[in-house]
Amino acid sequence: MFHFPRNRSKRSDMSQKPTIRHALSTTRAGDFAAWYQEVISEAQMAEESGVRGCMVIRPWGYGIWERIQTLMDARIKAAGVENCYFPLFIPLSYFAKEAAHVDGFAKEMAVVTHHRLIADGKGGLVPDPEAKLEEPLIVRPTSETVIGAAMARWVQSWRDLPMLTNQWANVVRWEMRTRMFLRTSEFLWQEGHTAHADRDDAMAETLRALEMYRGFAEEVLAMPVIAGEKPENERFPGAQATYSIEAMMQDGKALQAGTSHYLGTGFAEASGIQYQSREGVQEFAHTTSWGVSTRLIGGVIMVHGDDDGLRVPPAIAPQQVVILPMLREDDGDAALLAYCEDLRRALAAQHALGEPVRVLLDKRPGKATQKRWAWVKKGVPLVLEIGGRDAAGGQVSVLRRDRLWRDDGKVAFAAQSRDEFLGVASAEIENIQRALHAEAMARRDAAIVPMDDWAAVAAYFTGSEDAVKGWASVAWSRPEGAALDAVVEKLKALKLTIRNTPLDGAAVSGACIFTGAPAVERIYLARSY
Amino acid sequence: MFHFPRNRSKRSDMSQKPTIRHALSTTRAGDFAAWYQEVISEAQMAEESGVRGCMVIRPWGYGIWERIQTLMDARIKAAGVENCYFPLFIPLSYFAKEAAHVDGFAKEMAVVTHHRLIADGKGGLVPDPEAKLEEPLIVRPTSETVIGAAMARWVQSWRDLPMLTNQWANVVRWEMRTRMFLRTSEFLWQEGHTAHADRDDAMAETLRALEMYRGFAEEVLAMPVIAGEKPENERFPGAQATYSIEAMMQDGKALQAGTSHYLGTGFAEASGIQYQSREGVQEFAHTTSWGVSTRLIGGVIMVHGDDDGLRVPPAIAPQQVVILPMLREDDGDAALLAYCEDLRRALAAQHALGEPVRVLLDKRPGKATQKRWAWVKKGVPLVLEIGGRDAAGGQVSVLRRDRLWRDDGKVAFAAQSRDEFLGVASAEIENIQRALHAEAMARRDAAIVPMDDWAAVAAYFTGSEDAVKGWASVAWSRPEGAALDAVVEKLKALKLTIRNTPLDGAAVSGACIFTGAPAVERIYLARSY
Repeated sequence: MFHFPRNRSKRSDMSQKPTIRHALSTTRAGDFAAWYQEVISEAQMAEESGVRGCMVIRPWGYGIWERIQTLMDARIKAAGVENCYFPLFIPLSYFAKEAAHVDGFAKEMAVVTHHRLIADGKGGLVPDPEAKLEEPLIVRPTSETVIGAAMARWVQSWRDLPMLTNQWANVVRWEMRTRMFLRTSEFLWQEGHTAHADRDDAMAETLRALEMYRGFAEEVLAMPVIAGEKPENERFPGAQATYSIEAMMQDGKALQAGTSHYLGTGFAEASGIQYQSREGVQEFAHTTSWGVSTRLIGGVIMVHGDDDGLRVPPAIAPQQVVILPMLREDDGDAALLAYCEDLRRALAAQHALGEPVRVLLDKRPGKATQKRWAWVKKGVPLVLEIGGRDAAGGQVSVLRRDRLWRDDGKVAFAAQSRDEFLGVASAEIENIQRALHAEAMARRDAAIVPMDDWAAVAAYFTGSEDAVKGWASVAWSRPEGAALDAVVEKLKALKLTIRNTPLDGAAVSGACIFTGAPAVERIYLARSY
Repeated sequence: MFHFPRNRSKRSDMSQKPTIRHALSTTRAGDFAAWYQEVISEAQMAEESGVRGCMVIRPWGYGIWERIQTLMDARIKAAGVENCYFPLFIPLSYFAKEAAHVDGFAKEMAVVTHHRLIADGKGGLVPDPEAKLEEPLIVRPTSETVIGAAMARWVQSWRDLPMLTNQWANVVRWEMRTRMFLRTSEFLWQEGHTAHADRDDAMAETLRALEMYRGFAEEVLAMPVIAGEKPENERFPGAQATYSIEAMMQDGKALQAGTSHYLGTGFAEASGIQYQSREGVQEFAHTTSWGVSTRLIGGVIMVHGDDDGLRVPPAIAPQQVVILPMLREDDGDAALLAYCEDLRRALAAQHALGEPVRVLLDKRPGKATQKRWAWVKKGVPLVLEIGGRDAAGGQVSVLRRDRLWRDDGKVAFAAQSRDEFLGVASAEIENIQRALHAEAMARRDAAIVPMDDWAAVAAYFTGSEDAVKGWASVAWSRPEGAALDAVVEKLKALKLTIRNTPLDGAAVSGACIFTGAPAVERIYLARSY
């Protein structure tokens, strides 16, 4: 269990620690939800669009998404998966099929019923009654059905399998309560859909995608996750098995950050994905699907952000280094800018994390300190402030975003010679990537608490509201049906859910904390987004 | 004027030329429209989706789009433009504003009226009458209005200008007659939207985007284009000036392949994009917008395709080289595959056109000749066929897609030593890029015909249907209003439109072919897509 460093953000601090004036007006400890919104707003990542539940993703937020896309896409392609594009609209009848087939069929979707507007005679526009669609179209909430129909055309023989496809797209789910990046009516994602000859091959793909997500979260997002299987009640409707990666946010809640599903032959039967086997027999394919979305950005904020704003892991930072010349609007500016441009070029020629360093020389008008704090709030990993004297003396003043404050409460700029800095810049960028991961990992591990019985769970989650509630690690007997329903109800009373059963979980002994029957595995219990 | 090489595709040819059996069943000369569809189908680029007017873009087609995106995006970013993402849905009221403001307002759009489905009691689903939206939402046909609203929030002072934004997105326009890639209800595009302090700066951006498109078309797509200004009647609704790049397809028709608009202050006034000038005065911004779409892929097909399928310029080819091992399903296959893999690795380590060579070793089961023709139809620039003897002798058998046939009518494979080929492979890839451009340029230039009077225009376009009709280059006096309407009507009778006034047009003398008044510039007249 841990606490946020509440005191550091108070100005009239009675302790030994110096007073720090943080860049945000809210703190994680004070109001985590408000803090989250403030980070998004102050880092200029996204904003409300005026369209219910839809956001405008601004350049810094979209730049992070582009980095995620680029690096995830490389991993997807490396696995032999090919990108396609499927229609935004899905005929209503496709869902009727699925509704019959799938129990948990979600019905909150955007329905297109007309294809023309006409003037209403009062200066406004209305849907033209003459242009009513014969069959309504649904804005895709996911593309299972339309991709299934395509695969049914493409798959004929065992030679066509495995068929590995992926799509980067926008999807829409009509959400009543929305929160930027975490739950929006429209969001951006990738959805992998694959078809295989048999269960083994499909299950291997399901787990390959899960491992791809796990590696991506840890290595690229610097976000520690637990990869594991969701309990039966949390399965994707129609799936035989659902796996997830689960990350812990700084308020202790879990975020499901990616899922991978083994769908058995159910979807193939509904869509008609059949193939002729080597033996000449018609068989249904086994299918999988897996996806991650712009939700990952919400996770990055809540894992790495601090009371001064976002901290972006260098691997996904649109800019890894920002150079801020302290312009004075006088004759000295030309020499200062030349020095900064030279520095920019030298950095851009270096490589960090396997790619050229992304560096921006910010020449926009404005006060240097204002610009500094804007970049701090955006979480750029390294800020270089360069004044006229630095330029004359061949110096740079370096600020690491992940170590913003000195012990004496001052901003931790460090003066270095230009050449010395250039010698370590790449390594420093890589250090920040590692440091953010290590910090998140230590915090998460400290907040995963093994518990031996239900009383301990109840005590932990009903304890002081001040303390961050992490995850309970408990042993259970993997009950099913009505027994599982009873567990879910019991958890609900404490606002808890079962997150997953870790794939690399150690063997268990003892009794299930719910049923008393012999335990078969450990699971994580947590509050969640 | 030119003719397609009709005879070469006929089997019982009476001329000296040998008989060639082309890979497609239709020819450009025989039925250009059917040929176009066959290329798309046989190259597995796209197919009908079952959703009216929407296509499924298959991996080869989508791979080409990804290449276009990657290279265009680099040019957009290099110009300092930042990517954002705006909502798919736009409230109806935004269009009411625009409808009042813009004359040519298009009303064919997808209208979302409900947000839930319910069972109809007969095993089907219907939009839930209880879930009718208070205000219908429109699926974006373009994002002018919603981006304008955002810019109105973001732009406050002259310091915020220019504001340069771009979006990669799907958009929907309800089209009655659709044709894959050229005109589909849903398509993919980028839309640049920028705001500037004054007319000069906005006009400079409009022309910068146009020049970016021109350079991209020529250098990346190997597609010669004319950059110029559209006549008044072809302006984007609400624009003060519209510019385009126009490409000539092999049937002589023009394809508008990209547009850039200077919008004056009209959109800023409608959206409220105002800024405080250096002098402290509130001013409306001058805005621009510019876009290209998946339509470019249709252009690439119709400029470079031949009677054997697509030919993809190497810069946008998802694979530039495909290695086809002639597997025999015996003990020799292992050595053959090892040789091919070694070759693949050696090629992948090379660079062409400034990037690592994209090379695929196609190990899928199937007959080598079938696979060869599949790749020919897809238009991969270089095909290498490797048999057991080639592997043993250190040889490769190379086929350039742009020079498929020998004079004797055989497929033009050339045997080379492996090392010799590796020494020239990059250069050969770059040669193909240049050769495709030169071929297209020569064909286009031969089909642009200067004409001195209307009689010549009428004779040209009413002549033999056998001959490909190119473009007429004529001088005119740039009539406006009713005089322009009369010109447009006259052209319409010959199915002609004014394409544009080239930016680099030479000075003209003489009389306008329409009005007899002194000519001020030359324009192109053509049939078009």
